[in-house]
Amino acid sequence: MKEELEKYFDRLWPICRSITGNGLRESLKILEEIIPLQWSEVPTGKSVFDWTIPKEWNIREAWIITPDGRKIADFSINNLHVVNYSVPIQGEFTWEELNKHIHTIPEIPNAIPYITSYYRENWGFCLAHQEWISLPKEGKYKVLIDSTLEEGNLTYAQCVLKGNTDREIFFSTYLCHPSMANNELSGPLATAFLYRMIASIPNRKYTYRFLFAPETVGVIAFLAEYGEYLKHHIDAGYVLTCCGDPGAFTYKRSKHRNSKADIVAEHVLRHSQKKHSVIEFAVGGSDERQYCSPGFNMPVGSLMRTMYQRYQEYHTSLDNKDFISFAALEETVMMYFNMVRVFEMNDQYVNVISHGEPQLGKRGLYPSSINPVFNREETHRLLHFLSFADGEKDLVEIAEWRNESALLYENIIQDCRKAGLI
Amino acid sequence: MKEELEKYFDRLWPICRSITGNGLRESLKILEEIIPLQWSEVPTGKSVFDWTIPKEWNIREAWIITPDGRKIADFSINNLHVVNYSVPIQGEFTWEELNKHIHTIPEIPNAIPYITSYYRENWGFCLAHQEWISLPKEGKYKVLIDSTLEEGNLTYAQCVLKGNTDREIFFSTYLCHPSMANNELSGPLATAFLYRMIASIPNRKYTYRFLFAPETVGVIAFLAEYGEYLKHHIDAGYVLTCCGDPGAFTYKRSKHRNSKADIVAEHVLRHSQKKHSVIEFAVGGSDERQYCSPGFNMPVGSLMRTMYQRYQEYHTSLDNKDFISFAALEETVMMYFNMVRVFEMNDQYVNVISHGEPQLGKRGLYPSSINPVFNREETHRLLHFLSFADGEKDLVEIAEWRNESALLYENIIQDCRKAGLI
Amino acid sequence: MKEELEKYFDRLWPICRSITGNGLRESLKILEEIIPLQWSEVPTGKSVFDWTIPKEWNIREAWIITPDGRKIADFSINNLHVVNYSVPIQGEFTWEELNKHIHTIPEIPNAIPYITSYYRENWGFCLAHQEWISLPKEGKYKVLIDSTLEEGNLTYAQCVLKGNTDREIFFSTYLCHPSMANNELSGPLATAFLYRMIASIPNRKYTYRFLFAPETVGVIAFLAEYGEYLKHHIDAGYVLTCCGDPGAFTYKRSKHRNSKADIVAEHVLRHSQKKHSVIEFAVGGSDERQYCSPGFNMPVGSLMRTMYQRYQEYHTSLDNKDFISFAALEETVMMYFNMVRVFEMNDQYVNVISHGEPQLGKRGLYPSSINPVFNREETHRLLHFLSFADGEKDLVEIAEWRNESALLYENIIQDCRKAGLI
Repeated sequence: MKEELEKYFDRLWPICRSITGNGLRESLKILEEIIPLQWSEVPTGKSVFDWTIPKEWNIREAWIITPDGRKIADFSINNLHVVNYSVPIQGEFTWEELNKHIHTIPEIPNAIPYITSYYRENWGFCLAHQEWISLPKEGKYKVLIDSTLEEGNLTYAQCVLKGNTDREIFFSTYLCHPSMANNELSGPLATAFLYRMIASIPNRKYTYRFLFAPETVGVIAFLAEYGEYLKHHIDAGYVLTCCGDPGAFTYKRSKHRNSKADIVAEHVLRHSQKKHSVIEFAVGGSDERQYCSPGFNMPVGSLMRTMYQRYQEYHTSLDNKDFISFAALEETVMMYFNMVRVFEMNDQYVNVISHGEPQLGKRGLYPSSINPVFNREETHRLLHFLSFADGEKDLVEIAEWRNESALLYENIIQDCRKAGLI
Repeated sequence: MKEELEKYFDRLWPICRSITGNGLRESLKILEEIIPLQWSEVPTGKSVFDWTIPKEWNIREAWIITPDGRKIADFSINNLHVVNYSVPIQGEFTWEELNKHIHTIPEIPNAIPYITSYYRENWGFCLAHQEWISLPKEGKYKVLIDSTLEEGNLTYAQCVLKGNTDREIFFSTYLCHPSMANNELSGPLATAFLYRMIASIPNRKYTYRFLFAPETVGVIAFLAEYGEYLKHHIDAGYVLTCCGDPGAFTYKRSKHRNSKADIVAEHVLRHSQKKHSVIEFAVGGSDERQYCSPGFNMPVGSLMRTMYQRYQEYHTSLDNKDFISFAALEETVMMYFNMVRVFEMNDQYVNVISHGEPQLGKRGLYPSSINPVFNREETHRLLHFLSFADGEKDLVEIAEWRNESALLYENIIQDCRKAGLI
Repeated sequence: MKEELEKYFDRLWPICRSITGNGLRESLKILEEIIPLQWSEVPTGKSVFDWTIPKEWNIREAWIITPDGRKIADFSINNLHVVNYSVPIQGEFTWEELNKHIHTIPEIPNAIPYITSYYRENWGFCLAHQEWISLPKEGKYKVLIDSTLEEGNLTYAQCVLKGNTDREIFFSTYLCHPSMANNELSGPLATAFLYRMIASIPNRKYTYRFLFAPETVGVIAFLAEYGEYLKHHIDAGYVLTCCGDPGAFTYKRSKHRNSKADIVAEHVLRHSQKKHSVIEFAVGGSDERQYCSPGFNMPVGSLMRTMYQRYQEYHTSLDNKDFISFAALEETVMMYFNMVRVFEMNDQYVNVISHGEPQLGKRGLYPSSINPVFNREETHRLLHFLSFADGEKDLVEIAEWRNESALLYENIIQDCRKAGLI
């Protein structure tokens, strides 16, 4: 999977995405090679809850020419150089005049910051601090931003993978950032490849929904259309972002704290032997704040690696291919996939021999008493499962009683089914 | 406030109080200069639940004259010298005979103990151990206690400060101890000055009740009259005692353990940065044992500094002005006042934009995205508040989620009200 | 009690017990000298839930004669030498042929293992590993097992000691192991002597039931007959096993985790000052797995010393009289008896003076205020009890609030009853 992830990463990387526009659409088209998508276009000016769909932004070219004739801040070299949603501009400025439109990070002098101005018309450039301060203070700077801000559409896309029931597990990822790797290309890539793995499970119990939408306003637009349905059908949901760096896992809980989303994610993490931490819901985050807003309050958490705002490279040009690891990204996909495996198994089984324990010997399920050590661990697990399979406790509770992974019970459940015990 | 506290302390200090009598009334009159009081006089012999109002005790003079003619144990010098509620006596005794009526503390040889005999007619003197054992064993001691124990009344007094609702916050303090500072003058002083601060809050939600009563039997008399009403209207109550020493705070919980009284007191203490401890309800205490008796079981706790029985000076002449600090006493009043501020704010707010988050930008509540660090903490707090303002969680729960004080939300709530968000 | 325990131990020790047969009956007859028993005989072939009563097994003689003429593995010297439930056999075998029927423990070369083959017809011998490997590999071994496996009965026996109510406390112990001391003779001995102590309590509230049955199938046979009744009348139950070694106590909880059985056992242990640990229910255990099967799920735990499978001597000839201590066994009986004392007292008392505290002085229950230190601890306990005796909290909760044993309240409850306070 690693090589394929890298191939798609390299194709998506150079595209300049925003919360609207052709870069977003181009990215969705590439992802459609992995996951079939149903597109929604929401027109400029449409009200979605408390928000209004903004104008559509597109950009062709942008640069600054220094007094000594060098072209810098060239959009075609790094699309972070332009403040996202900049209005068009062409003109000449002194260093002082231009400085009001320049963004840098003095604390990380070699990083280009990622800046947006969606809801206030403005323009600007982003540069490495060390570059900007080394430029001549005298003379005129020529500036061009060849962008458009016009009536158009906001685009989002989803895939619904039907299962035997209409209860849903929901995966949401955002697609609106220009060239940055962990936040955010890792999220859409993980979501698309997770789809592929889930689609290969035969006879799925759950319906799975996958959403690719611009952050905040895109998700609010999705919720305006699908929120009520989802609210009544969702069993668990996750926001996929920051999935690709090699740091420890971070699980951010839903507001419920102990929804199925939280229980299963923490169960799988705990028994994965991987380093991880669990944090509570907080609004300083991503689209979970829409899903968990009071009117929806869905069981939506987020399994990440190193969380947004907790790494210095966040929202800068340093969040690039060097910062992430495709092995780590694959590991994140597998962690989500193990959560899915647990969801598919996590029923409330009923042991039909409820009074006294079943006689395993006559069913060929008991190790011979002549050899008391043979396979004792597995027999204990089987007896444990049957003793707790009372139709009330689910598999995760039963496995947690022994402080072990529900995934260890896959064969036992099959054996019990064959023997007619459940 | 410190200077005023000291002025009133100095005036109340010399008065000989008991559970009945003129010293109690004189003290209430002085407190009336700070807080308006409604007096109740309960006649001797009246049954109040399991108790009977005792005779009224008053005393003019008491002393011992030693065989060598010195006057000692002089009531006019220290009113602790006489066992409180001593019957009148006049006579001559040998050292041996008198010794049966003398109380000292061998472990603290320079302290005069505080002893009472309310419910068994008796008389006695209290002396510093070192003084008593140094007196001549030969010769006669002349003794006078000029007291009266007659039909009369037990006095208590209260103030009800009306608010917009009839839900009550209740403050109870006892007034029956002679000249001792932390236990008990600090309690009535703190209560009276707290009244003054609360009375200055405009447009109060809660009704506040302040009670000054003799410990145990006085509070039982109050409950016999007002207990049923209070039980059905109280949201939280506190017993004010031991408020003046400079030690760490101690909060003693109500029996409920997590009543509003407990939650708010512990919340304010936790975020005050002041050293404190929290202990469970126990009967070894003060009037909370009446308020929390099974038939009432009200949410009444007690915020103190160093608790009764936990300091050596307790119930001796060493619990005097030197032992307390008026700065500490003021700090205690302020801690109670901050609890009141939280009670007034602690509602279950409803965010009217419940689906998706509100767009703060269009309401001028969002820091510019061009400058992402401006005021970020306050914006997070605002979004946090709105995300959790679901009409179920109260403000303290919402603030505790972020492990911070509800008092930090005062401006945010005003801003949201103005913006029509709640 | 120690000497008597030892006397009965010595008589029960040599008998060869199994899950059926005359050894079991002979053992029950000896126990009947201590506790009156009502016997049940369940015929071979009868279905009890998922199980079928097996044939009855009896044995007279068994041995091996080595090629050099020595008699070894002699059943009359140690009944562990024969695999329990061995079918009859007589013949001559080479060392190689015989080896398939020999059981040893290479890791404990001087121990004879305890092996059974109840549900698969087979025969075998158990030897110390060091003995078996030292025998000549050449020549013929003469072998005899003179046993019978025929239609018959499985025997269990119980005693119901009536109390004032039909709510039951249940003690279950198993009786099917040949000569081993901690697991299992300690269990039946403790159960019988516990009966004798409980029978001496006058005016008991609870009905007590004592069961002696073969492990697993015997208990399932008992449950088939009495399970439904017991399920609806049991307040708490315990499996008595591994009661005699001098190690620390182990309490294994019921599946409920906080049933009355668990609360009282853990309360008594916690305040006993004895070293102990508490573990959760697990199926790797004894008859609690029948009592706690989903169809019954009774509040049945198990107070042991060193638990089965946690000591190396378990299920070997080294679990003998040297391994146990009759002082430890007596201490276990006393611990169970203290649990019974708590059950008998553990009511929800109602303080009739519910409003304000009772005036203890007029009832002679208060230490004189003239002498404030006299008996203060006991008075506090009394006031604490009355303050919490609200008809909802039981005595264990009230005592736990002060982190002390309910047994300390025996006199207080009597005093309150006499004074008409409860």
